[in-house]
Amino acid sequence: MKLIYTGKTKDVYSKEDGNYLLKFKDDVTGTDGVFDPGANTVGLSIEGAGKAGLRLTELFFKRINEEGIPTHFVEADVENAAMTVKPAEVFGKGLEVILRYKAVGSFFKRYGKYCDEGADLEGFVEVTLKDDERNDPPITEDGLEMLGIMTKEEYKELVNLTRKIGEIVKSEMKKKDLELYDIKFEFGRVGEDKHIALIDEISGGNMRAYKNGKYIEPLELEKLMLEKI
Amino acid sequence: MKLIYTGKTKDVYSKEDGNYLLKFKDDVTGTDGVFDPGANTVGLSIEGAGKAGLRLTELFFKRINEEGIPTHFVEADVENAAMTVKPAEVFGKGLEVILRYKAVGSFFKRYGKYCDEGADLEGFVEVTLKDDERNDPPITEDGLEMLGIMTKEEYKELVNLTRKIGEIVKSEMKKKDLELYDIKFEFGRVGEDKHIALIDEISGGNMRAYKNGKYIEPLELEKLMLEKI
Repeated sequence: MKLIYTGKTKDVYSKEDGNYLLKFKDDVTGTDGVFDPGANTVGLSIEGAGKAGLRLTELFFKRINEEGIPTHFVEADVENAAMTVKPAEVFGKGLEVILRYKAVGSFFKRYGKYCDEGADLEGFVEVTLKDDERNDPPITEDGLEMLGIMTKEEYKELVNLTRKIGEIVKSEMKKKDLELYDIKFEFGRVGEDKHIALIDEISGGNMRAYKNGKYIEPLELEKLMLEKI
Repeated sequence: MKLIYTGKTKDVYSKEDGNYLLKFKDDVTGTDGVFDPGANTVGLSIEGAGKAGLRLTELFFKRINEEGIPTHFVEADVENAAMTVKPAEVFGKGLEVILRYKAVGSFFKRYGKYCDEGADLEGFVEVTLKDDERNDPPITEDGLEMLGIMTKEEYKELVNLTRKIGEIVKSEMKKKDLELYDIKFEFGRVGEDKHIALIDEISGGNMRAYKNGKYIEPLELEKLMLEKI
């Protein structure tokens, strides 16, 4: 097994069978010691954060696979905070897909002239390029095609999968009285046919959720989602 | 005639026949006394700037009308720096349509990870909301529809008209050895059938142009375009 990439919150190893191992770290993104899932720097280390993130990722990826939606997930080894995944080719140099059910965060900051804060959005999809240096700029369908990042057909499929996965995550969260406001996903091309599959993780830091009108921070969200009823 | 709106570079009057009069001012946008077409504040006043902007607008709008593309233009009174236009309903609270032939400016700032500065873009269209307070945020086709700003059909027509108008402007400029890098337009709904028409103006401050590889600033551009050969 060979370390091939050191990320902010995960390390990536290549396995001899062609798959990859994602090792979830206890480091979380943030600034000045405060956990902030939207930040591009590692802010602090919280014991058990890696394992909790992996457990929630496993829960969601298994549910998504059950619904017949492709992911890169193979298996999770929670004890070692490690997840085995299929090799995937990212779009361009990597992008994030944001799914919004409520007008909050950067959406409201941009479009506040046209909507009230917290208004319903019914599954609005946006794409941003992963580019720390340029603050993850948003990009349109036409832009993605023009820069050779994905075809129009792939974009359509990406939006379709995003909405389907969002519904699954939303309904899982509803079981714990959590309301999903927005969530970000990563996708890649997997397999010889290069079909679009969900990659990376789905942990507390990927989403914004509320319970009884109160914001639930990522680690608390993971705790609520993972505790047995 | 009644003053109904005081803009940064134009005042708007309503006429008794139902049309409007745009009075071009000598004020130009900029910061600290330096002309900057992208700025949202008036930076300085330059004698004759209003008339020059109107003359270039008249030249382009007449050419565009000749090609059968709808505009709000009725007539120009250069002596009084005034243009009579048909009433138009803007999209939402107003938006700008940017057409790019070269990867420069904010495009390159955002997507520099995927293209070289100055690369050809072959008529790439982007839309931003006019919102000084929020720095004119970019918006996607889906966003425009969801916020009730325009329908998908209108978006398609908008992009189509933008590219056609761009070709006309580009070819007019080529006659003076000027190369158009990018340009911004405004559109609105005109007439009882609410067809999409080009509105506002097309003056030096709306575009970025080069001559023999050298950037030509807006007032110089207007001078070059308007001088008799």
